[in-house]
Amino acid sequence: MEKRTTYCGLVTEEYIGQEIVLQGWVQKRRDLGGLIFIDLRDREGIVQIVFNPDFSKEALEAAETLRSEYVVEVRGQVTARDAAVINPKIKTGKIEVQVTAINIINKAVTPPFQIESEVDVAEDVRLKYRYLDLRRAPLAETFRMRHQITRAVRNYLDESGFYEVETPVLTKSTPEGARDYLVPSRVHEGEFYALPQSPQIFKQLLMIGGFDKYYQIVKCFRDEDLRADRQPEFTQIDIEMSFVDQEDVIAMNEGMMARIMKDVKGIDVQLPFPRMTYEEAMRDYGIDKPDTRFDMKLTTLNDLATHMDFKVFKDAVQNGGAVKALVVKEAAEQYSRKDIDALQDFAKIYGAKGLAWVKVTAEGLNGPIAKFFDETTTAELLETTHAEAGDLVLFVADKLDVVNAALANLRNKLGKELGLIDDNQFNFLWVTDWPLFEYDEEAGRYFAAHHPFTAPKKEHVDMLMTDKDKVQANAYDIVLNGYELGGGSIRIHDQEMQAKMFEALGFSEEEAEKQFGFLMNAFKYGAPPHGGIALGLDRMVMLLAGRTNLRDVIAFPKTASATCLLTDAPSAVDTAQLEELNLKLNLQEDK
Amino acid sequence: MEKRTTYCGLVTEEYIGQEIVLQGWVQKRRDLGGLIFIDLRDREGIVQIVFNPDFSKEALEAAETLRSEYVVEVRGQVTARDAAVINPKIKTGKIEVQVTAINIINKAVTPPFQIESEVDVAEDVRLKYRYLDLRRAPLAETFRMRHQITRAVRNYLDESGFYEVETPVLTKSTPEGARDYLVPSRVHEGEFYALPQSPQIFKQLLMIGGFDKYYQIVKCFRDEDLRADRQPEFTQIDIEMSFVDQEDVIAMNEGMMARIMKDVKGIDVQLPFPRMTYEEAMRDYGIDKPDTRFDMKLTTLNDLATHMDFKVFKDAVQNGGAVKALVVKEAAEQYSRKDIDALQDFAKIYGAKGLAWVKVTAEGLNGPIAKFFDETTTAELLETTHAEAGDLVLFVADKLDVVNAALANLRNKLGKELGLIDDNQFNFLWVTDWPLFEYDEEAGRYFAAHHPFTAPKKEHVDMLMTDKDKVQANAYDIVLNGYELGGGSIRIHDQEMQAKMFEALGFSEEEAEKQFGFLMNAFKYGAPPHGGIALGLDRMVMLLAGRTNLRDVIAFPKTASATCLLTDAPSAVDTAQLEELNLKLNLQEDK
Repeated sequence: MEKRTTYCGLVTEEYIGQEIVLQGWVQKRRDLGGLIFIDLRDREGIVQIVFNPDFSKEALEAAETLRSEYVVEVRGQVTARDAAVINPKIKTGKIEVQVTAINIINKAVTPPFQIESEVDVAEDVRLKYRYLDLRRAPLAETFRMRHQITRAVRNYLDESGFYEVETPVLTKSTPEGARDYLVPSRVHEGEFYALPQSPQIFKQLLMIGGFDKYYQIVKCFRDEDLRADRQPEFTQIDIEMSFVDQEDVIAMNEGMMARIMKDVKGIDVQLPFPRMTYEEAMRDYGIDKPDTRFDMKLTTLNDLATHMDFKVFKDAVQNGGAVKALVVKEAAEQYSRKDIDALQDFAKIYGAKGLAWVKVTAEGLNGPIAKFFDETTTAELLETTHAEAGDLVLFVADKLDVVNAALANLRNKLGKELGLIDDNQFNFLWVTDWPLFEYDEEAGRYFAAHHPFTAPKKEHVDMLMTDKDKVQANAYDIVLNGYELGGGSIRIHDQEMQAKMFEALGFSEEEAEKQFGFLMNAFKYGAPPHGGIALGLDRMVMLLAGRTNLRDVIAFPKTASATCLLTDAPSAVDTAQLEELNLKLNLQEDK
Repeated sequence: MEKRTTYCGLVTEEYIGQEIVLQGWVQKRRDLGGLIFIDLRDREGIVQIVFNPDFSKEALEAAETLRSEYVVEVRGQVTARDAAVINPKIKTGKIEVQVTAINIINKAVTPPFQIESEVDVAEDVRLKYRYLDLRRAPLAETFRMRHQITRAVRNYLDESGFYEVETPVLTKSTPEGARDYLVPSRVHEGEFYALPQSPQIFKQLLMIGGFDKYYQIVKCFRDEDLRADRQPEFTQIDIEMSFVDQEDVIAMNEGMMARIMKDVKGIDVQLPFPRMTYEEAMRDYGIDKPDTRFDMKLTTLNDLATHMDFKVFKDAVQNGGAVKALVVKEAAEQYSRKDIDALQDFAKIYGAKGLAWVKVTAEGLNGPIAKFFDETTTAELLETTHAEAGDLVLFVADKLDVVNAALANLRNKLGKELGLIDDNQFNFLWVTDWPLFEYDEEAGRYFAAHHPFTAPKKEHVDMLMTDKDKVQANAYDIVLNGYELGGGSIRIHDQEMQAKMFEALGFSEEEAEKQFGFLMNAFKYGAPPHGGIALGLDRMVMLLAGRTNLRDVIAFPKTASATCLLTDAPSAVDTAQLEELNLKLNLQEDK
């Protein structure tokens, strides 16, 4: 092997006249008029190399054996292309390389799919041959961007006085939160480590330890029932600061996001980011992570519903539910009854029993429920919703969370469908003033909306035991284009308050002590006020790279059933290994 | 809370005359002549704050309640100290802060040990209260250095065109190598993930995927029987490059180490680093990681032994073993018989049956085995070992690996004992030309000396099956001051060669296919030549920070029995959790 002069994708006009050495993969071979043209590919792109008997007969002969994905090294002269064959689409399009010598480094059998930007291949094949999939330009570009994002984060945080500190991967299982991945201990019989769902407690301990500003880009783990946009292991940008309030954390984070957008996308974002309270978000968008790239807010029609003669609306409100509407501007003509049926089916996914609708015309309302509107209520509807002639109005009447879920998802769907979204726009948004608790109907109890270390607002502390629904936290989520990018809060730093919080969550003193005694103990020794944030790196990369699938931004992702199709993990292990871990299998068939 | 003006430890003369706000911990309180002096501490150091009724009576009153480790915020004026009370030992020693207002943010109970640089407290107490231990200046300094080291690594590698890529933590168990930590799968009954011992295979797959230059600072895991200098999870600087040979990897790595030394220690190291073959290292130092900060090489005396009339020496050589000597310069007087007995006891730890010795005097040799030397062999000994009058010569005669282990460890011990080592010196060394295999007597078979993906030297391929002891690899270790800092190799990139390697290691075709089929398959699709290195970050920090214990450089370390004394991990888990994982405990008492 020789020393490479530069990457294939970087051979531009400045190399004309020079002799260079390149190494890469054969992307494509064309034989034409006694010459052989090869597109040679590496990480940086493609360059055209030419085998011409005038330069080297030997090389031309060797080139006749070349097939896709062979690994070769060539020496050659860079020449300008004829004007007629200049390719303006690629960086190297003005030149080609006249090969004087070739060294076939490694051969390749025919790959299961062509290494091209767009391939029409089942994802499981691409995952099995992940190393081939990673050769494709869009994936290579995504991982370059992932690198650039973490660079920007690290540079910004380093300049801001943060220390990168590693926290343990083998740690303690906590029953609160999602399901833990467990790791049996060989040394301590019958005991287990857990993989961390986040370094939350450790970063708080670092603050108590006086580190002042901490960050880590760190793997976290959740053994969840997998959805399309979850992975069993995911990466978090984890940040914590001492002696700060919410505004400090938000300002720091805005600076970081601005740095990322500038360094990675070349975009100057405007600071500060817009803010919205959780309550406003739920009221106007029906969701805690609104996509603000388009308008189309929800309108609450509870008042109207109570004085309308429409049982469905009336009952919903009387039963403690709600009626909300979504105005789809100028969509009355575009959406046929059949199209609206499809929207209704979509709404049902989110629990709605139906989707009521009217079309607004110059003459009044049209549609199945138009008859329930008289002149007054029609005027009231139009005034409240700002609907105008030509608009389609969609209604859901149900329990509030069903109404919100159905309409929020309909809104996002319609925003895309109607082309209301500019893909090149990046709308950041803070959602603030989160409730401290959320009630889980199934479990019949309150859980921490973020986690049990989030501090209640001072003025709400009195309601901790009595009015849980009203207690808010200095907690904040950062939202980008309708995705939750991250969230954080100011934490409890007082032992008594933390004990009270566990009590409010229904922990007995013994349980709290057993699970979190070490943290409450730490609070006794001089804990500083502190707060922080954690951002999902995978999702951030996905959004900035314009991908729609988390698997595209993880080098070796797992499938929806948490398997790695490349290595075939998880897999069976030797009985001896289990024996050493003091474990026996307890398979379904034996139970 | 107010906005902090600066860190306590950074208030220097330039602040004199200014009003500032500080936040921190009470390190020490002294009441003196109606004033109260507090050493206020934060991450950056200590500043003296003064409560003086002339500035604020209220603040003085409040200060009377202050105790160690209280968290406070103060506002005050920076004044110059009187010349008589200037403390030249600390950055803030020329000033003090006259407090005008104080806010007691959090109280603290008496800590189990004082937060001082040197504490005489059992390590298990310090680990249990790790957050307090981390407040101590030497630990804080160590973690600052750890951050600086990773910064230097990332900056250098980024500038050199490396991409940071994350590889999976939940991966496949491989029986080769150390013991894996296993993670039971809930979804796939009876199957397990393993935590990676290194990202070796994934980084090779990234090379096959065309990433060209990869790095990661990554947690790795080994469920080993713990020794003082091992942790179940440790951090590796992991690097891989395509289209490179050994010289490229070495040069890249030297640049990186030079950058670290410059950025972190302000030291210009001289490049290139010295090199030594594995064979030379074992011959001259008896160890594969020689500490070259002092000389004292071993001398092989097999020739001499065979024509000496000393059965112990003679037998050792005749039985295929060796006789080697260590000359301790000018130590003959210093080491009494009793001292030498202690050295012998030390040598026995490493398997030596005894430690023979002579003292060299102007008149000849002294000591229990002097009688076995006649004039000729004495001359020969002195000539071979360069021993002179006043020197102590130590001998071990045994199997070669026992001889080497005993003398190499004796050499390191004596180097320290005799003050031959300059603690401020950093001696880097490459040990090259490693054997590809090593024979395990207990298992009765050959193992890969590095790992089974290391390429044999081209000229040694023919001996793979026939002469395993002679096959060398393009493998290299980097050694710093007698510690292995890292190691790497040029890898196999050819499917047939990899299959042959597995065969040489005694894998059946089926076993190789089952464990590593996906990698061998990947080699079929155009694998580039590649190689890399992995460096132990924890050990690097330990050496550069001048610590002697890995636990001092890990924020939340585990004990020798792999427990976390702070969180009490590992711990028992609910039966329901095990049930979900299709596992049952199989405790010793039931077996």
